[in-house]
Amino acid sequence: MSEKPFVPQIEIFDTTLRDGAQGEGITFSVRDKMAVAQALDELGVAWIEAGNPGSNPKDLEFFKAAGQLGLTTSKLCACGSTRKKGATPSGDESVLSLLQAGTEAVVLFGKSWDLHATEVLRVSLAENLAMIRETVAFCKDAGRTVIYDAEHFFDGRRANPGYAMATLEAALEAGADRIVLCDTNGGSFPAEIQDGVRAAIALAAERASRTPGSPARIVGIHAHDDMGMAIANSLLSVDAGAAQVQGTLVGFGERCGNAALAAIVPSLELKRGLRCLPAGRLERISALSRRVAEIANVSIPEGMAYVGARAFAHKAGMHADGILKVRASFEHVDPARVGNDRRFLMSEVGGRSAIAERARKVDPSITKDSPVAAAVAARLKSLEAEGWQFEGADASFELLVRRELDGYAPLFSIERYRVVSEHPAPDADSCSNAWVKVLVDGATEMAAAEGDGPVNALDKALRRALERFYPELSRVRLSDYKVRVIDGQDATAAWVRVLIDSTDGTEAWTTVGVSTDIIDASRAALVDSIEYKLIRDMERNAAERR
Amino acid sequence: MSEKPFVPQIEIFDTTLRDGAQGEGITFSVRDKMAVAQALDELGVAWIEAGNPGSNPKDLEFFKAAGQLGLTTSKLCACGSTRKKGATPSGDESVLSLLQAGTEAVVLFGKSWDLHATEVLRVSLAENLAMIRETVAFCKDAGRTVIYDAEHFFDGRRANPGYAMATLEAALEAGADRIVLCDTNGGSFPAEIQDGVRAAIALAAERASRTPGSPARIVGIHAHDDMGMAIANSLLSVDAGAAQVQGTLVGFGERCGNAALAAIVPSLELKRGLRCLPAGRLERISALSRRVAEIANVSIPEGMAYVGARAFAHKAGMHADGILKVRASFEHVDPARVGNDRRFLMSEVGGRSAIAERARKVDPSITKDSPVAAAVAARLKSLEAEGWQFEGADASFELLVRRELDGYAPLFSIERYRVVSEHPAPDADSCSNAWVKVLVDGATEMAAAEGDGPVNALDKALRRALERFYPELSRVRLSDYKVRVIDGQDATAAWVRVLIDSTDGTEAWTTVGVSTDIIDASRAALVDSIEYKLIRDMERNAAERR
Repeated sequence: MSEKPFVPQIEIFDTTLRDGAQGEGITFSVRDKMAVAQALDELGVAWIEAGNPGSNPKDLEFFKAAGQLGLTTSKLCACGSTRKKGATPSGDESVLSLLQAGTEAVVLFGKSWDLHATEVLRVSLAENLAMIRETVAFCKDAGRTVIYDAEHFFDGRRANPGYAMATLEAALEAGADRIVLCDTNGGSFPAEIQDGVRAAIALAAERASRTPGSPARIVGIHAHDDMGMAIANSLLSVDAGAAQVQGTLVGFGERCGNAALAAIVPSLELKRGLRCLPAGRLERISALSRRVAEIANVSIPEGMAYVGARAFAHKAGMHADGILKVRASFEHVDPARVGNDRRFLMSEVGGRSAIAERARKVDPSITKDSPVAAAVAARLKSLEAEGWQFEGADASFELLVRRELDGYAPLFSIERYRVVSEHPAPDADSCSNAWVKVLVDGATEMAAAEGDGPVNALDKALRRALERFYPELSRVRLSDYKVRVIDGQDATAAWVRVLIDSTDGTEAWTTVGVSTDIIDASRAALVDSIEYKLIRDMERNAAERR
Repeated sequence: MSEKPFVPQIEIFDTTLRDGAQGEGITFSVRDKMAVAQALDELGVAWIEAGNPGSNPKDLEFFKAAGQLGLTTSKLCACGSTRKKGATPSGDESVLSLLQAGTEAVVLFGKSWDLHATEVLRVSLAENLAMIRETVAFCKDAGRTVIYDAEHFFDGRRANPGYAMATLEAALEAGADRIVLCDTNGGSFPAEIQDGVRAAIALAAERASRTPGSPARIVGIHAHDDMGMAIANSLLSVDAGAAQVQGTLVGFGERCGNAALAAIVPSLELKRGLRCLPAGRLERISALSRRVAEIANVSIPEGMAYVGARAFAHKAGMHADGILKVRASFEHVDPARVGNDRRFLMSEVGGRSAIAERARKVDPSITKDSPVAAAVAARLKSLEAEGWQFEGADASFELLVRRELDGYAPLFSIERYRVVSEHPAPDADSCSNAWVKVLVDGATEMAAAEGDGPVNALDKALRRALERFYPELSRVRLSDYKVRVIDGQDATAAWVRVLIDSTDGTEAWTTVGVSTDIIDASRAALVDSIEYKLIRDMERNAAERR
């Protein structure tokens, strides 16, 4: 059974693994690269630029291993620059290692700005054209699809328009399949970008008309965010006729970063009706963006368009109220289309409607006029004044509501604990240890544990003490731990906010704790995490018995 | 002596204190609001929208105190909505409290989208027009400059263009001084925005031509970032004739945030030659953006255009090399124009040139071919593999270089320490205590301290032990403390990276530490901070003796 391959109207070209790796704080191991490529293939981008084998041995290692990836939608490209001055392509090791990567397509970048040719590469303008022409031709002769990236094209066009166009012509003449215009320094306005795109399309069309039977050349855009306009420049290039968009999924890249594809693709598909990904993939873009960010060990910017955690978070009471009446009143698209979630933020400005809406998950009888809603609002306000924030910590918010309900009794409490960190470590395996004494339904229990740090030791000791009463806790695992210093002015004596993500394999939840002491803040978040899990299980069991 | 007041070509209108406060995680006390207003006045924006006195009592308190601010450039506005349905403006408490704020200008927002009138406010289309007309006229009669914000104007124009324009006409007719078009849901493309701006300008001009002697009305833009295009939409509105730009300095706001003024103003001034701020103020925009973010207790996005910490950070070896040859080769503007700094990032892809460039601060004889440069590069690589990152920690990088130089000997070392955290706290003032034993030039010293948390206790004990040898340490203060979990997957047993900012009142420096144990990571960063200070002082004293 053969399926017709998917042909996008706009080719999405991701360079997270090449340009993205040049972002501050980003490094990928070979294993990381494999995981990122897999995520991009799941999303279904057309091209994955995976590295520069000529300048980085780790990248060559990746290409060797890439066969195991079994990509189903995306194609890999290796990237490299035009040959060195005075060399031949076949005598240039970097060009040869580019072919060694064994990818169907190669990305060649060359200089379009006369300044870069003469002052940075220090070659004549004619030699730069020869470097482009010969390297493209050499890769074509080797059977590769050639994507030609015209570096600094827009700066070049401003400085010396004739020469900038001549560099494109050299690449076209040598057979390049794609001509991609780069705003490498990110300093161009949309109108300049659109002009450049139209000029390149006209040049490619004119060449094609002179050579009957020659394939249509696609013109692409590669934008950087130094004026905060990479997304607009990419979208407006498509309006001007570009059919390939280069960027990085989450916007990683040099300086302010590359154009963020996760913010561009939804606009192209949902607002322009242009198919970029196979059917059904757009709904996975939020989750896959988070996965790529996690592999890179950074957080996705919370305010990022479409996929950020705050992209559909409503805080003002009036906004929450509007959304509850008509969804479109404060949302330009339905978050489900991009696999993101709508959230009503719990805060003093959030208003009683939003609090009641959320509290109904605990007790469906709560309305915005219930005394409980007022009590929760008051408690929220005083905790927020101390630096607590429940906007990301749904499980702690749910417990806050429960603790205001009649008949609430805690399932356990910590009577005492003591955590010790020592250097040199008394034991090679651990530098910290803790003991905890808990009280459960009148009975006490103590337990002790060693750990990789004070919080890890406390966490282990607490679970150990409680497992006698609640064996189901053995399935709970902390999946993420975040620390935020709330008031940096007082430095190590500042308030800290700890957020803990927990999971039991099927469900995931987040809790929060605040204190001047990081151990105490962690204790509060750990207690909430465990209590939330226990209440969940009890309610589930009760429902099953009914 | 009277100075001619500054009249900008484009009015910059900041709503950090109103729309910005609706961003997730943002709350301002009255004192915070005063500090933000002062920072915005130092920058020299035309208007500061400082709150909604009708819906928030804290805001009315702010306006009462605002007289003490002594603003020299910016003017305050209070903000509120049009009167309630069926009421008169003079009988509507919210409208009255707007006037009570006592500002020269008020911002009135009204509905332009028929859906919002009928489905959210639940008033007839005619009543909505009356609400706009009467409230604007009432505020004009009270002697206020009226800035009319047309909420959801672009959505309204898409749904019912005639009605959207009629709402603007109602405001103009009643005497509004400014008409500001809002893309409240952030879902509009630049072409729609530009069309809308041009239509509003034509309408205002047509009205002015019918009423001889009537003042020129300014049309403004208020964009949101839900498609990542708030900056482009603002800049392109100015290209279309808008003369007021509303936004928040750092981009705070509902969902994905408002248009970030700190990324817009530099483009208007440096690229379009439009004066927005008094002379000499643009150079302070990076520092003032950081100050506003600090007051809000959030970090400025590192990749933010112009003012972000990474905006002029060069990582790829080729880029660093290009910049060292010709500044403009990889920078669209000189960072000094916006008061930001160029940085060459120290990392394995950063290349030997950048490492040598930085190492020369320690020893001017180091070149990229020195054995020290190779040793530093190797050490950097192995530390980065463990999760260290020197990109933000210049003082720790300098010590890394010094430790590779011949003749380096540490000025002190920690022999042992022990940190204990207890609950309940044995002492009401502190929950943690620490003792430290240090070795200085063959002599040992021990000291102990209590603290607000384990790191605070360790920090105090360490300084106390060292002050016998180095009394100058009493002037050092930690000014910020950041914790980052490097690998969230293992939760509380994950690696943590600690960054510490220190100052002695004249100089500031940053150090880093990495470990699975937060106490141990903090210890490493504290040791670097103190050693850096001591070496600095010794070198300064030696230079003075010469």
